[in-house]
Amino acid sequence: MSATPVPDSIPQPSSKSDFSIHNIPFGIFSTRQDPTPRACTAYGDYVIDLKIMHGLAFFKHLDFPVDVFAQATLNDFIALGKETTSAVRHQVQNLLKDDRAFGIFFNYCAVPMEEAIMHLPIKIGDYTDFYSSIEHATNVGCLFRDPENALLPNWKRMPIGYHGRASSIVVSGTPVRRPLGQSRPLEEGGTPQFGPSKLLDFELEMGFVIGQSTKLGQRIPVEQAEDYIFGMVLFNDWSARDIQGWEYVPLGPFLGKNFASTMSPWIVTMEALEPFRVDGPEQDPPVLPYLAFSGKKNYDIHLEVVIHTDDFDATVCQSNFKYMYWNMPQQLAHHTVNGCNVNVGDMYASGTISGKTKTSYGSMLELSWRGTHPLPMPDGSERRFIHDGDTVIMRGYAEKDGIRVGFGEAAGKVLPAEEMA
Amino acid sequence: MSATPVPDSIPQPSSKSDFSIHNIPFGIFSTRQDPTPRACTAYGDYVIDLKIMHGLAFFKHLDFPVDVFAQATLNDFIALGKETTSAVRHQVQNLLKDDRAFGIFFNYCAVPMEEAIMHLPIKIGDYTDFYSSIEHATNVGCLFRDPENALLPNWKRMPIGYHGRASSIVVSGTPVRRPLGQSRPLEEGGTPQFGPSKLLDFELEMGFVIGQSTKLGQRIPVEQAEDYIFGMVLFNDWSARDIQGWEYVPLGPFLGKNFASTMSPWIVTMEALEPFRVDGPEQDPPVLPYLAFSGKKNYDIHLEVVIHTDDFDATVCQSNFKYMYWNMPQQLAHHTVNGCNVNVGDMYASGTISGKTKTSYGSMLELSWRGTHPLPMPDGSERRFIHDGDTVIMRGYAEKDGIRVGFGEAAGKVLPAEEMA
Repeated sequence: MSATPVPDSIPQPSSKSDFSIHNIPFGIFSTRQDPTPRACTAYGDYVIDLKIMHGLAFFKHLDFPVDVFAQATLNDFIALGKETTSAVRHQVQNLLKDDRAFGIFFNYCAVPMEEAIMHLPIKIGDYTDFYSSIEHATNVGCLFRDPENALLPNWKRMPIGYHGRASSIVVSGTPVRRPLGQSRPLEEGGTPQFGPSKLLDFELEMGFVIGQSTKLGQRIPVEQAEDYIFGMVLFNDWSARDIQGWEYVPLGPFLGKNFASTMSPWIVTMEALEPFRVDGPEQDPPVLPYLAFSGKKNYDIHLEVVIHTDDFDATVCQSNFKYMYWNMPQQLAHHTVNGCNVNVGDMYASGTISGKTKTSYGSMLELSWRGTHPLPMPDGSERRFIHDGDTVIMRGYAEKDGIRVGFGEAAGKVLPAEEMA
Repeated sequence: MSATPVPDSIPQPSSKSDFSIHNIPFGIFSTRQDPTPRACTAYGDYVIDLKIMHGLAFFKHLDFPVDVFAQATLNDFIALGKETTSAVRHQVQNLLKDDRAFGIFFNYCAVPMEEAIMHLPIKIGDYTDFYSSIEHATNVGCLFRDPENALLPNWKRMPIGYHGRASSIVVSGTPVRRPLGQSRPLEEGGTPQFGPSKLLDFELEMGFVIGQSTKLGQRIPVEQAEDYIFGMVLFNDWSARDIQGWEYVPLGPFLGKNFASTMSPWIVTMEALEPFRVDGPEQDPPVLPYLAFSGKKNYDIHLEVVIHTDDFDATVCQSNFKYMYWNMPQQLAHHTVNGCNVNVGDMYASGTISGKTKTSYGSMLELSWRGTHPLPMPDGSERRFIHDGDTVIMRGYAEKDGIRVGFGEAAGKVLPAEEMA
């Protein structure tokens, strides 16, 4: 990795940068020189220190607490509300467009991205994982149940979801240890197998972060739900298929999922994603009134998954967030229709995002069709599931009319299991 | 409610008090006079203000932060470790035994319990609900699946559990609003029903609170698991059976559970429960090595559920925590065998605690056998499930050799559903 040159004017990002002036996402970083985590945004190959910007009075027109960028999470900043967070974004954009701002702004506040250590940007209170891609749910239904009735009767009636583990959500770059666990006995009624998972998988997902809390008992109407969504991230919901397959009846996924989930460090605001709205798939049968919405509620976000090793990079999946059958406002309206409360920093993941084609499936389970069609790798090896030493890298970006807004990456290297003493 | 008289010496609790000198649980309270939530313990009919005790230097022999009792949750106090929390308990016990301490201690620090407003005592990071009563799992299996194969093949192999919603856990006394939601279509393939749950239920559970955090990737061996458990509470895992029944396949309970869970305000320490250890049910087939334990890991805690209305109190269930097939160390060892991390303040609930007899079942679902055997109430009415206006009160205590250690109660009144605008 070569050092980013010290510029003498504000450098323009390349046209392929995720972090164009149209993005201005939010994150938490530290550096070796200053190891205290603090808030930042990204521009091209640079991280921009919002704490220093605030210290230099660039936000003096906004009335917010002095320490809001000096914290290890963005929760308090996000809780200020979209009017304020949007004003911060616009101020950064204005300065970046102003060449005269180099000396008083960029020169003091920008850090080459390669020097930034990115942290988990939010304290996640609760994490919910949905199951909202019809292609994924259909594939899973075909693989494990009945291809003739792949979708269960409830699937098209509500965004099916379950609660996941918040404590084990880690930021991109954190290694993931292959989990130990029970799997199905070799013979029915026999002793379960126990050991390192043999079927370690990724799930290509996106997540959204709550920007406004509700009280217990309060419902979020579907048409107001966007007000409660601050922004989005890439999300790898790591899954141990053998552990999951043995444990999940009747109460759902548990140890097959909660050993780790990896999220990208940058929260891309819904404002930045506004140009990329598209219609979603037609919903038939019609949804119940509390799930009925108007307008374009899906987003055209290209997604891909790369398996990286010392020897090669293999793109194993290309998908798109626009395929989601259930959109985010529907997920949130459903989640709160019973009065369940949400809090700033809560994470809601989409579920695996698969498309219709075999190269757009968002998990190895589907890509290798439960291991029956191994994927050839550039070095001559094969992958049914993920090997020790593989790094799974998810990337995503939206692009239209020369505007590009990207998410960076959610990456995690799989370490071998640690056997029990 | 009559006012507790102002004593002139430290009053002895009645022999039926949950809060004997052997208990000394921890909670968070406020009063009208001082609405700032702060830490406390309980003794008989009094709450003892630990913040004031600390201010009066009663803990000066313990080296801990000055504000640890001045917080709205016990998390930081619990995180100090059992040596410290135990020393605080013992100091309170020593003072309560010393009649000379009335003037310098009790007179300043005790508040009549009826003046105390109790708060949720912990910030709950993650909440997991187990399913560890064999009688409950068997009953549910009989009711919804096959009486001949009521227990699924995995049930005796591991403590089955799932992640629940932390945000909607409320303290005893908080009203619970009947949730709206979807339920199964009247005709197969038809439009789902939507409206207030018709099958609102309680689940009699106990929960334990984590006292020591782990790092991601760290396993808690079953024999060390007790070191990580700070104490226990009563827990009502409210359930909307009709919502749950329609949504739960394949990913488990979600909106049928997450509208509210009620916990008792007092965390009873494992130290206080030490005298009540008993053997649990025999586990056959033998468990895998990582779940094998030695010694008495169950606790003899009498439990009961009362339906309270303006007109009557009806005890509908008497059960016991000792019936649990899977014990708490096994639950924790299983939960972390894959490296899932735990944090101070996490909540782990037992699942419904049913006994073998029909009056010991821990839910209306089982007590009324899915509504087929309604329970007669003292006023001539019946209950299949819980009605609007009913208050469900759970109580629990351990008693042996004249020593009583109780939990107070976990109570919640059901309010009618709020229809959608």
